[in-house]
This record gives sequence, structure tokens and C-alpha cells, in this order.
Amino acid sequence: MSGTLYGVGLGPGDPDLITRKAARLIEGAGVIAYPALAGGESLARAIAAGLIPANAHEIVMDVPMTLAREPAQAAYDTGAAQIAQALEQGRDVVCLCEGDPFFYGSFMYLYARLKDRFSVEVVPGVTSLTACAALAGMPLVARNERLTVLPGPLPEDELALRIEGAESVAILKVGRHLPKLRAVIDRLGLLDRATYVERATLAQQRVCPLAEAPDNAPYFSMILLTKGADPWL
Amino acid sequence: MSGTLYGVGLGPGDPDLITRKAARLIEGAGVIAYPALAGGESLARAIAAGLIPANAHEIVMDVPMTLAREPAQAAYDTGAAQIAQALEQGRDVVCLCEGDPFFYGSFMYLYARLKDRFSVEVVPGVTSLTACAALAGMPLVARNERLTVLPGPLPEDELALRIEGAESVAILKVGRHLPKLRAVIDRLGLLDRATYVERATLAQQRVCPLAEAPDNAPYFSMILLTKGADPWL
Repeated sequence: MSGTLYGVGLGPGDPDLITRKAARLIEGAGVIAYPALAGGESLARAIAAGLIPANAHEIVMDVPMTLAREPAQAAYDTGAAQIAQALEQGRDVVCLCEGDPFFYGSFMYLYARLKDRFSVEVVPGVTSLTACAALAGMPLVARNERLTVLPGPLPEDELALRIEGAESVAILKVGRHLPKLRAVIDRLGLLDRATYVERATLAQQRVCPLAEAPDNAPYFSMILLTKGADPWL
Repeated sequence: MSGTLYGVGLGPGDPDLITRKAARLIEGAGVIAYPALAGGESLARAIAAGLIPANAHEIVMDVPMTLAREPAQAAYDTGAAQIAQALEQGRDVVCLCEGDPFFYGSFMYLYARLKDRFSVEVVPGVTSLTACAALAGMPLVARNERLTVLPGPLPEDELALRIEGAESVAILKVGRHLPKLRAVIDRLGLLDRATYVERATLAQQRVCPLAEAPDNAPYFSMILLTKGADPWL
């Protein structure tokens, strides 16, 4: 009988924000899989480090840092094949995912490759979205308010259109797009409603008004913008 | 010295999806606060029940089930006053919140009332959004895709406009609005991309194609619709 693949959300970075279910699965794992930047560190492994059994077999997926499609696809093909081999031997595999597996998580590429052949369970995690909101003290949405999540690389016109259509907006993957994003938000007259959050819940976390954010933001940064969340005072 | 107010997200319902931080805070709590439907049960308390110390003092906020503004405001005014009294006595207060405190959570009303007078820490939780996606096996967003979260009571034209503007859409607070929502999604030609999820992670959970969902859905139900999440195969 084949094993089960668990796609386990680890939350935004603080190991304390791992769920009890995820912690139990990791502590009992015989085989652990996780992505790493090619040749470099794995944030997912770092978050879970205190829970990984010393004798667990580890499958490392080296994911190239490139926008090109083929090299990344090949990395997930290779990772899926290694995971499939363990599952076929009847071993369960716990795949570590930063944040939540289905919210901009690379686990979805493994899921697409393996879900029709094996039993797969996805364990949801705390997303960077609500972790940043908590840290910034910015309620996102209440009652009949709308929330839109946008990636920073989108074109300016598209960003402006979507920002206008929601009471709250979170922009992920800010990175080098920060000056463009700040300009769009300023043009909409919303700069004083926008907060910049960097590496939420990690030791180097930072929160400041978007107006004061650095031009060259790291990949793990977010802009939160809210026109809503009426406090019902 | 005043105590600290902790707004603690409990996740979508399965007590196993409580984070380790939330569990520790609840287990050590001297004062617990939570909302309950007027005269009825508290889902928040039920989720955390196994962790609440037997001798904890409990502050119950009876929230009326009405769309009118004033009775709910009065309930949060009363709750905030009771919490403030405990904080002024130097006691910490752990406020239990279904899901995440700042994602359609009533904690934001207490936060607005107390944040300027007391130390408040918000502990993010797993949202119903990613819990439903995990249960339905529906990756939400990848790479440069957009996600929009909409409440079911919005008007049809607004729903249609926002559904067209994102690769993935989650519609919360479905309830009696289900027939309207299904009609809008069908008119957009997207009915076969939509899944209905009811009471995710609770014992009575249910997942089915939206086409087969009941006309009269409970409040805790969601529609997930995805045109994106390209699996990069």
C-alpha cells in the first residue's frame, strides 16, 4: 500500500505559528521534503528545524531563482519523482511549505503532479497576509467589505483598477517593484492608508508607513492598504 | 501595571489547526473572553474547549444576530468595558476568535475600542479561506495571479465585476444568497469551476460542486472559484 503525501503549511516564519497538526506530522515524519533556493538555504526547513526528527530522510528540491518556466518545472518533476518513490515504498512524506500550501505556495506544483496517483492531504497554515495584518495592527475586512490580493509585478493600470475595487488590498512579492507600487498608490491618493511590512514574524521583521519604505524591498515583503474595516465604534 | 490583551485566532474549527502560540496562551490564561450568539453557543469557545483552564474567569459577549448597527455596537461596548476592567487590574486577557482576528473577525471591534489604552497583541490564525481550499483540493493562487475575497450579500453586478477581475475568487457568508451567487457564476460561464464548501474542518463538513449545493446554505459556507493556479506541469 502506498504512503500518504502531506502538504503542510508552516505559517509565516515564527515556529510558534505552526499549527498543532503540522507540528505533530513533522515530529512523526520518516520522510521530509522541502524546496530550497538552488544551492542555498531552505526557509521552510529553517522554520520547522526544531521539530524534524534527527533520523528523518530529507528530500531537498533545488528550485532555481529564475522567471523561466522550464528549469523550475524540471526541479518539481525531479522532486515529485523522488517523493513518488518514497510513497510507492509505503512511506508517508511530509512536505514543508512556508505559509499555506495553496496560497502562492510551490506545493501546488507537486500536488498537480502527484494527486491522481497518491493519497494527498493538505494541512492549511497561517498566511503572510493575516500575519502582516496582525503585526501592522491593521484589521483587513469586516462585514460586507472586499479584499483583493495582488502580486507586485502586475502592470500599473491593472494594479490601480484592482485597488479601486476593494476596501482592503494586500500586495505581495513587492521586492524591486516598490517604487512603482508606491507611485500607483500615491496617484490614487491612498499613500497615507498604506503600510509596508517586511519579514513578518521573523527576527528581522520591520513595519513602517509605505511612504518611508526602502526602494529595494526584499522578496518577503508586503504592502497593506485599507480604506475599510470600519471599527463600528 | 495593566495587563495585555491577546486577540487569538483559533483557525477554522478543528482544534488541531490551532497554532502552538495560541494553544500556549489559552492554556495559561487567567481570563478568557469570547463572543456568543445571544443566549446561545459560542463556536470560538467550542474550538478551544480542550485548552481552557478549569479555573479561568470567562467573559462572554452576547452578540445579537441582527444586521442593525446599534445592538451589536452596544454588545462590544459592554464586552470592551469588562475586558478593560480585568486589564486595569493587571490581568492578561485572552480573547478567542474563530479563524483569524482581522479577517472578518469580530475582534476588530474590541481592538478599535481598546488598542489606544492597553497593550494588545494579535495572534494570527488559519483562515477559512485556505482551510476550504485545502479541503476542496483547489490551489488558490500562484505566481502573478490575483485573488479576491467577496462577501455573498454584495449586489449581483458588483459580484460579476469582481469575479471577472481575478484568477481566483472566494465568496464568504454564502447563506441564503446561494441561488443568486450560483446564477451570477453560471451567467459568467464559470459554474464548472466553482466548488461549494460547508463547515470546513468541522465534523459536519461538506464539499461539492456548486451546481449541486443546497439553496439554503448555512452562514459558515464558502464558494471557491478558480480560473488560475496553473500547475506548471
